[in-house]
Amino acid sequence: MSCFALSKRVLQKTFTLTLVPNIWKRSFSSAPALSYPLAPGWGSKQAAKKPKKKYPNLYIMDAKSEEILAPLRAAVKEQGDLVRSLKADGASEIDVKKAVNELKARKKLLEDKELALAPSESSFDRTKMEDLLKRRFFYDHSFAIYGGVTGQFDFGPMGCALKSNIISEWRNFFVLEEQMLEVDCTVLTPENVLKASGHVERFADFMVKDLKNGECFRLDHLIKAFLEKLAADKKTNEATRQECLTTVARLDGMTREEMNAIMRKYEMKSPITGNDLSDAMEFNLMFSTSIGPTGLLKGYLRPETAQGMFVNFKRLLEFNSGRLPFAAAQIGNAFRNEISPRSGLIRVREFTMAEIEHFCDPDEKDHPRFASVKDQTLVLFSACNQMDGVAAQTTTIGEAVAKKLVANETLGYFMARIQQFLLRIGVDKARLRFRQHMSNEMAHYACDCWDAEILTSYGWVECVGCADRSAYDLTQHTKATGVKLVAEKKLPAPKTVDVVEPVIVKGVLGKQFKKDAKKVTDALTALSPEQLTEMENKLNEAGTYQLTAADGSSFAISKDVVSVKRHQKTVHVEEVVPSVIEPSFGVGRVMYALLEHSFRVREDDDQRTFFSLPPVVAPLKCSVLPLSGNSEFEPFVTQLSRELTTAGVSCKVDSASGSIGKRYARTDEIAIPFGVTVDFDTLKEPHTVTLRERDSRGQVRLPLSDVAPLVSNLSRGLTTWAEVEAKYPRFEQQETTKAGGDS
Amino acid sequence: MSCFALSKRVLQKTFTLTLVPNIWKRSFSSAPALSYPLAPGWGSKQAAKKPKKKYPNLYIMDAKSEEILAPLRAAVKEQGDLVRSLKADGASEIDVKKAVNELKARKKLLEDKELALAPSESSFDRTKMEDLLKRRFFYDHSFAIYGGVTGQFDFGPMGCALKSNIISEWRNFFVLEEQMLEVDCTVLTPENVLKASGHVERFADFMVKDLKNGECFRLDHLIKAFLEKLAADKKTNEATRQECLTTVARLDGMTREEMNAIMRKYEMKSPITGNDLSDAMEFNLMFSTSIGPTGLLKGYLRPETAQGMFVNFKRLLEFNSGRLPFAAAQIGNAFRNEISPRSGLIRVREFTMAEIEHFCDPDEKDHPRFASVKDQTLVLFSACNQMDGVAAQTTTIGEAVAKKLVANETLGYFMARIQQFLLRIGVDKARLRFRQHMSNEMAHYACDCWDAEILTSYGWVECVGCADRSAYDLTQHTKATGVKLVAEKKLPAPKTVDVVEPVIVKGVLGKQFKKDAKKVTDALTALSPEQLTEMENKLNEAGTYQLTAADGSSFAISKDVVSVKRHQKTVHVEEVVPSVIEPSFGVGRVMYALLEHSFRVREDDDQRTFFSLPPVVAPLKCSVLPLSGNSEFEPFVTQLSRELTTAGVSCKVDSASGSIGKRYARTDEIAIPFGVTVDFDTLKEPHTVTLRERDSRGQVRLPLSDVAPLVSNLSRGLTTWAEVEAKYPRFEQQETTKAGGDS
Repeated sequence: MSCFALSKRVLQKTFTLTLVPNIWKRSFSSAPALSYPLAPGWGSKQAAKKPKKKYPNLYIMDAKSEEILAPLRAAVKEQGDLVRSLKADGASEIDVKKAVNELKARKKLLEDKELALAPSESSFDRTKMEDLLKRRFFYDHSFAIYGGVTGQFDFGPMGCALKSNIISEWRNFFVLEEQMLEVDCTVLTPENVLKASGHVERFADFMVKDLKNGECFRLDHLIKAFLEKLAADKKTNEATRQECLTTVARLDGMTREEMNAIMRKYEMKSPITGNDLSDAMEFNLMFSTSIGPTGLLKGYLRPETAQGMFVNFKRLLEFNSGRLPFAAAQIGNAFRNEISPRSGLIRVREFTMAEIEHFCDPDEKDHPRFASVKDQTLVLFSACNQMDGVAAQTTTIGEAVAKKLVANETLGYFMARIQQFLLRIGVDKARLRFRQHMSNEMAHYACDCWDAEILTSYGWVECVGCADRSAYDLTQHTKATGVKLVAEKKLPAPKTVDVVEPVIVKGVLGKQFKKDAKKVTDALTALSPEQLTEMENKLNEAGTYQLTAADGSSFAISKDVVSVKRHQKTVHVEEVVPSVIEPSFGVGRVMYALLEHSFRVREDDDQRTFFSLPPVVAPLKCSVLPLSGNSEFEPFVTQLSRELTTAGVSCKVDSASGSIGKRYARTDEIAIPFGVTVDFDTLKEPHTVTLRERDSRGQVRLPLSDVAPLVSNLSRGLTTWAEVEAKYPRFEQQETTKAGGDS
Repeated sequence: MSCFALSKRVLQKTFTLTLVPNIWKRSFSSAPALSYPLAPGWGSKQAAKKPKKKYPNLYIMDAKSEEILAPLRAAVKEQGDLVRSLKADGASEIDVKKAVNELKARKKLLEDKELALAPSESSFDRTKMEDLLKRRFFYDHSFAIYGGVTGQFDFGPMGCALKSNIISEWRNFFVLEEQMLEVDCTVLTPENVLKASGHVERFADFMVKDLKNGECFRLDHLIKAFLEKLAADKKTNEATRQECLTTVARLDGMTREEMNAIMRKYEMKSPITGNDLSDAMEFNLMFSTSIGPTGLLKGYLRPETAQGMFVNFKRLLEFNSGRLPFAAAQIGNAFRNEISPRSGLIRVREFTMAEIEHFCDPDEKDHPRFASVKDQTLVLFSACNQMDGVAAQTTTIGEAVAKKLVANETLGYFMARIQQFLLRIGVDKARLRFRQHMSNEMAHYACDCWDAEILTSYGWVECVGCADRSAYDLTQHTKATGVKLVAEKKLPAPKTVDVVEPVIVKGVLGKQFKKDAKKVTDALTALSPEQLTEMENKLNEAGTYQLTAADGSSFAISKDVVSVKRHQKTVHVEEVVPSVIEPSFGVGRVMYALLEHSFRVREDDDQRTFFSLPPVVAPLKCSVLPLSGNSEFEPFVTQLSRELTTAGVSCKVDSASGSIGKRYARTDEIAIPFGVTVDFDTLKEPHTVTLRERDSRGQVRLPLSDVAPLVSNLSRGLTTWAEVEAKYPRFEQQETTKAGGDS
């Protein structure tokens, strides 16, 4: 079961913490559309000439800011200490929970202020980016010609290619490099599987209904919007205002009763119709359906891909010749019937996940490749720091594991690998942190959990979860099915064990219990050594023992039916239920964060927007542009296009009219990193063309035959643009800067 | 809308034609487990030494067989001619349908006999293959530890890798090479979309219910099983036996009433309980669910991926700068709630499709790349041949299009490309044909449709549909939404057109109709030129006109509200609704056929089974095997594994104990085409290893440093094994042949 799954409420928290109300309506146009600084290039020499403006360091504030933050930090620490002492004193669960809610509220105030105080040299215009995404159909609302469905998005050619490149890179990086066992399981899942996993009972949100028209609202969203509006009202007095803000900050983790009380206190009505609202009700977030024609087999669309790996554990262990550790992986769609989806790709009803379940010996969580990552630095925002009001800290993963800050090597190894992957596809390291779940956030069965959070204009967004889930999931499925999901572990030395067994006199038992004979036999066989000893004593003392069967029925057992035998045997292996370490990626969220981090506005023309995606994930790698419609260019364009395709370089020919500058602007918009222009000089021998790099707009002139292998190398990161500029003569002709009517 | 979709009954026909009853229970073990001949190799020199046994030519029968087939052929032709003449005479639909059912029955008898007469040198043991697929977890029933769900399969590591390699190759071959616009749309689809496409009304099968316990049966399957059993009963007289067989052959395409009548005539009961059965009812095959919390928005899991491309047509056209032709493509899952899924991967409830929608000018269906495929030969089983009882014929696609056998170049181009793709991934050309839909099978809107059918042990299976669907789908969605789904086509020369327009006096209309003003305005604007002329006449004659609005309400219109204006205007473009050519791949079916075609049994040991998959789709490309557990081998194994991974070659290290022969047998089972062994000679300088090829079991000795680049080239088809054997010395050591306990 995925981190994404049962930590759902936690997830919501992550977003609501910094979520702007009415996200779809918010206008960003009043904000100055500053040019976005170039992020650290992936090999652009020209870009390197300018002193690069980096995204500000979020963890080191200047003295003045720290002065402002100091009381907020102190308030967090005060509350954190209170929580600690309550726990130490064994306070009641409800008291701890209340204190934790207050702690979260204080944490939120601190984090909001930290983000507000962060240097403002970087600005981001979401409206502008969304305009580009829509205009060039990276993705858009599904079924728009039918009025659309909220929380569902279709990926157009560029969005689809970006997504499939991210997935393909993920597969290379994790499945192939680490020799994981990838599986592809079904979406339709029968109810009993999701009962065992806990989803049927617990995977729910609170909602209220308009009593007249039946419209539904997610209760925490409704309360938040209401109270924020009230707080912003000039007629509201200061005491009420403060109360509103405090309540909002405490919303997460509130019980149904607490929320009902708030709703009634403020006499909240439907914000749309003004009608009365129902009491809060739980709404299960899974889509249900029936499998087969009878309508009797209830099923759900899976809310995560993880369960498919757990139920196939035995087959996978066998595929791995019975040996631990091994990792399973799955990439696929999951479905959640959100009450009120919003925030674009971040909260949707249908999404792609990439999940890993690493099964290992519960007593040996070291990792053979840990040494290869131990010096890697990560920004860790530990539970302890969160309780102390202290900022996230940069440390090596080796140090973090050595200090037991991160529970074990395997967990640490995956955190490092997650970061490597995210940086590789273009996420900005300055906006990435690992936040540890505080003990109250963590599912009760997990022993440690860290979320890779990425900072976007929606705040810090959990994009990858990384949890040590111990033996919970396999144990649950064993309980539900009776199938042992265990691995055999060779003992360091053979061991002699005491065996206590019932010896059943079958003939007598059969005669006495007739149709219940099997039930009685099963009940006797299921007795623990302690129970067997108890039975033996009872039989010796009273001559009879009252046996309880699995269905609760009771049977009087006499001495002639059963006796107890004790002996010793030598065993060479022991059975263990493996622990599971689970890295779980939300592909859509990672992709959205990546789009934000790579969105750029040209410094010399704020109408020219583009995505600076690394070539490895860019939807297309190269454009081929004939200078004009002159038919003499055609054979060269065809040849280039064929050579590039053969070399595995995806390319796009743009023979439309319009200046080269306009056409480059168009290819920049869809993030094509390299562009080749065929011009009149190409016609002369030796045939040459120009090659342009998107971010720096630098151009070189090179032989036509060099293009395909060179761009192939550039796309796979084997050559840098700086090396290209060093090798080939610069092509100085200025490209038209103004995009003009080019939209 | 996909060929797979509305031609569902046709699909079923394809299977039932040659389907063995009780497929999961049928025992093949009594059949002699003959070794399967090696198919044409993809570059094995050793394999080439033996005279290869090819799959028999299915279309050329010997004289004796033709003698047996002659009366069957004549019977088909007689009925085919009858159908033709009925159509020519404009006979009633029901008469044509009856004649067609009889034609199909005769076709089935002919085809069964043809397959029975085909030379028997090739045999295939499905039980053996299924055992291997299960044992090495290529795929298996989903949720088996919970008792399993029929019609759902999970792909294990090797099945998943094979499937993802097929998909990746498909993407390269179609999307990248043809610069298609790939999209990724949602599975959850609101009801109104699928109403427009026709699925809500027509995507159904007939079923009956056990009146006591509610168990459901697919009616055609039930009748077939019942009548076949009756026919096989020794007590059944010859007349009844013949009637049974004829009825079975006529089952496809029967109406509900016809099936009910048969069921009542034979007094059929539930085969499980003997209880009475309900009348036949239609069962829609889509999985339904509700989207959102209110339960009011009904949705379905998409039964095909095609609709996502149609509803996004406008965005895609815009992405393509408004120009035709262009092709959209989508790879994704679709869902069908089969009443009684069977035949393994062929009939399942959840499956992956890869679909292409090529949008083109309805008047220009030539294809710029047709010349590149025109000489390619295909086996075509035309509608005409099917009606004449004549075998399928081999022809070039150029000839077929020239003769108008295939409707147009674009359709022909895609048929050729489909064949290229199937052969490239390893489908046997001798077992591939294109069968044309007969006019009665074709959806009424399609103008031509060819199915790529692959011969398996289940008979001929439709794996890829290729249809010219004309303007049907876009037109349906326009009707449902009012959104014009058209492209602008430049006219060869500007054209002057007559325009007839209503001139509305808004003020007067507003005063007269008040709240209905908009409705009246819309109705006036929607009038056709003919209706406008009629209105003008009425207004002139009677001074009033009775206008009917869209909702059926009626309004009396007077002269002071509206007049009619006529003028001319010059237009440079015209709007056309594009035609759609749709190749639609069932990935699971293609994969299953490929597994059957590549399944092999070693001639010298019938316990050694393996898959001869081409390297391009093989799950893993290379194994690395240390000769023994000697720790000196380790660094070489690690180095090789790293070098191969870096070169993009997926590999598997097998350090388990057991002879090299046994371990090779294990890697053969999972279709790994190349294997490297590190042995004691590897320790000496210069370091060398052996490289082995799976199908021929030939081995060479080569420098360790040559391995990664060489296997990378072999895997991508850039080097052949024959070239490797020519370059490097042969390694003669015999591998252990007997697999022994190796299972």
